[in-house]
Amino acid sequence: MGSSSDWETMKEAALIIEEFGVNFDKQVISAHRMPQEMFKFANDAADSGVKVIIAGAGGAAHLPGMIAANTILPVIGVPVQSHALNGLDSLLSIVQMPAGVPVATTAIGVAGAKNAALLALQILGIQNKEISQKIKAYRKKLHDKALKSGEELV
Amino acid sequence: MGSSSDWETMKEAALIIEEFGVNFDKQVISAHRMPQEMFKFANDAADSGVKVIIAGAGGAAHLPGMIAANTILPVIGVPVQSHALNGLDSLLSIVQMPAGVPVATTAIGVAGAKNAALLALQILGIQNKEISQKIKAYRKKLHDKALKSGEELV
Amino acid sequence: MGSSSDWETMKEAALIIEEFGVNFDKQVISAHRMPQEMFKFANDAADSGVKVIIAGAGGAAHLPGMIAANTILPVIGVPVQSHALNGLDSLLSIVQMPAGVPVATTAIGVAGAKNAALLALQILGIQNKEISQKIKAYRKKLHDKALKSGEELV
Amino acid sequence: MGSSSDWETMKEAALIIEEFGVNFDKQVISAHRMPQEMFKFANDAADSGVKVIIAGAGGAAHLPGMIAANTILPVIGVPVQSHALNGLDSLLSIVQMPAGVPVATTAIGVAGAKNAALLALQILGIQNKEISQKIKAYRKKLHDKALKSGEELV
Amino acid sequence: MGSSSDWETMKEAALIIEEFGVNFDKQVISAHRMPQEMFKFANDAADSGVKVIIAGAGGAAHLPGMIAANTILPVIGVPVQSHALNGLDSLLSIVQMPAGVPVATTAIGVAGAKNAALLALQILGIQNKEISQKIKAYRKKLHDKALKSGEELV
Amino acid sequence: MGSSSDWETMKEAALIIEEFGVNFDKQVISAHRMPQEMFKFANDAADSGVKVIIAGAGGAAHLPGMIAANTILPVIGVPVQSHALNGLDSLLSIVQMPAGVPVATTAIGVAGAKNAALLALQILGIQNKEISQKIKAYRKKLHDKALKSGEELV
Amino acid sequence: MGSSSDWETMKEAALIIEEFGVNFDKQVISAHRMPQEMFKFANDAADSGVKVIIAGAGGAAHLPGMIAANTILPVIGVPVQSHALNGLDSLLSIVQMPAGVPVATTAIGVAGAKNAALLALQILGIQNKEISQKIKAYRKKLHDKALKSGEELV
Amino acid sequence: MGSSSDWETMKEAALIIEEFGVNFDKQVISAHRMPQEMFKFANDAADSGVKVIIAGAGGAAHLPGMIAANTILPVIGVPVQSHALNGLDSLLSIVQMPAGVPVATTAIGVAGAKNAALLALQILGIQNKEISQKIKAYRKKLHDKALKSGEELV
Repeated sequence: MGSSSDWETMKEAALIIEEFGVNFDKQVISAHRMPQEMFKFANDAADSGVKVIIAGAGGAAHLPGMIAANTILPVIGVPVQSHALNGLDSLLSIVQMPAGVPVATTAIGVAGAKNAALLALQILGIQNKEISQKIKAYRKKLHDKALKSGEELV
Repeated sequence: MGSSSDWETMKEAALIIEEFGVNFDKQVISAHRMPQEMFKFANDAADSGVKVIIAGAGGAAHLPGMIAANTILPVIGVPVQSHALNGLDSLLSIVQMPAGVPVATTAIGVAGAKNAALLALQILGIQNKEISQKIKAYRKKLHDKALKSGEELV
Repeated sequence: MGSSSDWETMKEAALIIEEFGVNFDKQVISAHRMPQEMFKFANDAADSGVKVIIAGAGGAAHLPGMIAANTILPVIGVPVQSHALNGLDSLLSIVQMPAGVPVATTAIGVAGAKNAALLALQILGIQNKEISQKIKAYRKKLHDKALKSGEELV
Repeated sequence: MGSSSDWETMKEAALIIEEFGVNFDKQVISAHRMPQEMFKFANDAADSGVKVIIAGAGGAAHLPGMIAANTILPVIGVPVQSHALNGLDSLLSIVQMPAGVPVATTAIGVAGAKNAALLALQILGIQNKEISQKIKAYRKKLHDKALKSGEELV
Repeated sequence: MGSSSDWETMKEAALIIEEFGVNFDKQVISAHRMPQEMFKFANDAADSGVKVIIAGAGGAAHLPGMIAANTILPVIGVPVQSHALNGLDSLLSIVQMPAGVPVATTAIGVAGAKNAALLALQILGIQNKEISQKIKAYRKKLHDKALKSGEELV
Repeated sequence: MGSSSDWETMKEAALIIEEFGVNFDKQVISAHRMPQEMFKFANDAADSGVKVIIAGAGGAAHLPGMIAANTILPVIGVPVQSHALNGLDSLLSIVQMPAGVPVATTAIGVAGAKNAALLALQILGIQNKEISQKIKAYRKKLHDKALKSGEELV
Repeated sequence: MGSSSDWETMKEAALIIEEFGVNFDKQVISAHRMPQEMFKFANDAADSGVKVIIAGAGGAAHLPGMIAANTILPVIGVPVQSHALNGLDSLLSIVQMPAGVPVATTAIGVAGAKNAALLALQILGIQNKEISQKIKAYRKKLHDKALKSGEELV
Repeated sequence: MGSSSDWETMKEAALIIEEFGVNFDKQVISAHRMPQEMFKFANDAADSGVKVIIAGAGGAAHLPGMIAANTILPVIGVPVQSHALNGLDSLLSIVQMPAGVPVATTAIGVAGAKNAALLALQILGIQNKEISQKIKAYRKKLHDKALKSGEELV
């Protein structure tokens, strides 16, 4: 993520990946304050065995796109809700990438962070039966919870 | 895609996947006019050997999200540029998915269609050396073309 | 509605329909987490004697449109106010339906929920004298309350 | 509709209602230039045997809401695409009605006009078997056309 | 104003007009819940000796435009800040009037209410020396207060 | 107006005022390129016998507000449609004035220019029977034209 | 700045410039309430030895542009977050200047105020080794703080 | 600039700098397709004698911000008008930089490109009498042209 203040949003992604028992690493790598580290991280990621990268950032939110420019791993971008413009700036900065360098963008804020984790797991699940089974179970749990919530409305 | 009128945008994705020599299938499956077929397609996709789904749609643009709700394959959504609101409606309808069911959203219009193809290929490239090599070559070509274009400015 | 968290908004619709003494049923049917149930509900609604459907949802808000795609009953969509974008996403996702499958959209949030109930009652009132008389009385009450509120300004 | 310039959009509604063989009347009634006629029209509509009203307008677009304020018939509002703001102004002016007086709003522009006609027919179809059968056939036709369009992509 | 809930905003206009010692009348006249009274008010205003009308409303905010359609007195519209869209809907509904029927629109919320009062007074001041002198004094006071505020920054 | 390119919009205001036979003067006074002349114009306007000022500008559109800051005459602001943002920038820059210095804002573009002229005439018409009679006739003409346009729809 | 209420935002700029030990002066100069003082300030600035001007304002936010129109010193504009529209109005009013009179615009709110100070210092740093060294140190500090913050996530 | 397609916009900046007789270099350096070259350019700029950098880009538009992150020279960002969102995405991506790394943002499109050149010249003019004299002459020319354009309106 681009700043430790993004952690409140991005930890929701971490919690899900942990719940799935998949290895991951979390880091603050600011595109604007740590550009050299960001480039190094992105360029080295594939060789370090990273398979998917999740990058959350707010405002100008250059982190996901700049990581994507330096790797051919799939990069998932989470638009963190910004102060003045509620994340519309983050969303447009992340999603409107030029042809050639995609960023897989999810929803603004916490829902987007959770979905970034699930998307990463769905990507890994293409080749990994164990993960895909766990996704099915996770979906089933969501389904049952939604179903039950309807019975409890007052 | 949700309508044959989206083909003008989405064929850019097809062209890239063809260029990479990867198998794919293209279909018009309207979420609103062909809901049963859409559900069948989404539910059967994984078992038919599909690995990644690209769904392009404009306006209310429910196609990507509804396919994602019926499969655990990664679904990439392309916001097709709409008439009145220039694709802002398409973008928000596709990207603002609730926690639990992610859609990997790319840019509005042609750039998004191209990037959807590249993102799908990057996802496949995690486990496929041949594809990942081709992505590197594709990026190199873009790099060289951009570099050269600067020398030709008048 | 698409989630039990929409109930705080949608119960305003329920209260009005109850006040009119008209039968109704309330359910959580998530388009994304319960797609099969949603399709079943929509496809069966007309035969179960349902006359009008009110569907409230926020964010990508696919519920109203997907129900509309599976029934020829009139579907009224209520854009629930979302967290980051204040319901602008909900509104555009619900109202910008493609030609062929209409959703009768009302205002964002509580006013929209109330008006969805009144619109449903006005639709039923076309053929039902008792309901139409009650709508007239309801309007009269609103009129008198507004008139009186002006006399009490300080 | 509020102006003869809206006819280019609204005639799409007329064509569909004609196709269904349902009686209707088309009029220019400007909320701002013909306010007395507008009120008279709205107040008299129910007694003249009108069952549903479709009102299209652009910009400040007060017509649908002001007709709704003077009748308890269901009023469907079509946001006509405006010059500078592409119909976003029309949409917000029509859809953001206060609690008490609903307007059933459809999409901006031609799709909205078509859907206004279909929504009106779906409302009438609740009590009219002939109309509801025709809607089913209309939907079937759309379905088949969408299905076939996919086979013709080049 | 269109609702007693607008009074919190509109009383700022009343306070300024009172401060200037100019006669005025304040009323709740809802365009949607009291359409007949609204038309009567607007049509009678000029003959009752009213010179300028200030109309505040939020959301669909039809009040200023509909009053303007029924009088040739200058009508000043104040976009009251709405719940979901922060008054952007109110602003567009009030300002985007079609050619022929102007509404003099001021800023969203309290600043707009105050400025509506001042604009009304400036209009009256064209022909009324006493009022125009008071406006000059009011401006002078604002000027001096702004000047002094700069000296007190800490 | 702020630029000769605004004339295409603002001449619509001039045509109406001419039609009413009211004296007026048209000038290009750029807030940004001719600030001294703008201040002089605004400060001298009242003493030169000007009664109402119409100021049209696009983009940052500071002209109406800066003239208003230098006169106590009523200032009407017309948001000229801008290139990239279609006049949304012009509208917000003109209408969002701080408390103390009102600008009477009309619609974006040509409709706003026409309405600025009519608003100015309505302001003058408060004290001028001849003008107010002409406004009534003008409105009558609009009414009749709208009425007739409905009869000619094909 | 345009109002003492902007001080809460703009003091962040002052704190940074103080930290760098560079001389500066802070003033409230309202474009709308103190237009003569504003012009005098802008016209005199270069001769008084001012090198760069930072102007913060909200809403219609004419201050930066009008100062820029009266000086050839670089003017940096800070869009202060406004009440209803969260600073989108401030941003567009400041940044959308016509060709000929630039305003160097920074982000909405506190980040923009801080960056205005840093931009001013970077401008001075072109010719001033001491300042440019301090900027490098400031950046280093930001870098190290960001790096460290990543190690402390819980 | 980020792409040779930006040249149509950015050449307006080049023309002005040429007109002033100031040395400059123009390059296509894509943040996303040429990230290594971009970093090298930005890191080397100050030592190569560059004093001010102008970076134009559209859409996600990361170029200005990423250059700014790698240099302490002042960086001016020009939001190039994008296809779907008319440059609103470019604007927000460029201007909403986090505290610490400023980008001096100008208007969307051609006006912004021209103003970027003038802003760069104003920055250089702080210490360079010849340039500041030319800016004064340039402003005078704009003033005279605006003044004259008013006399030629028909």
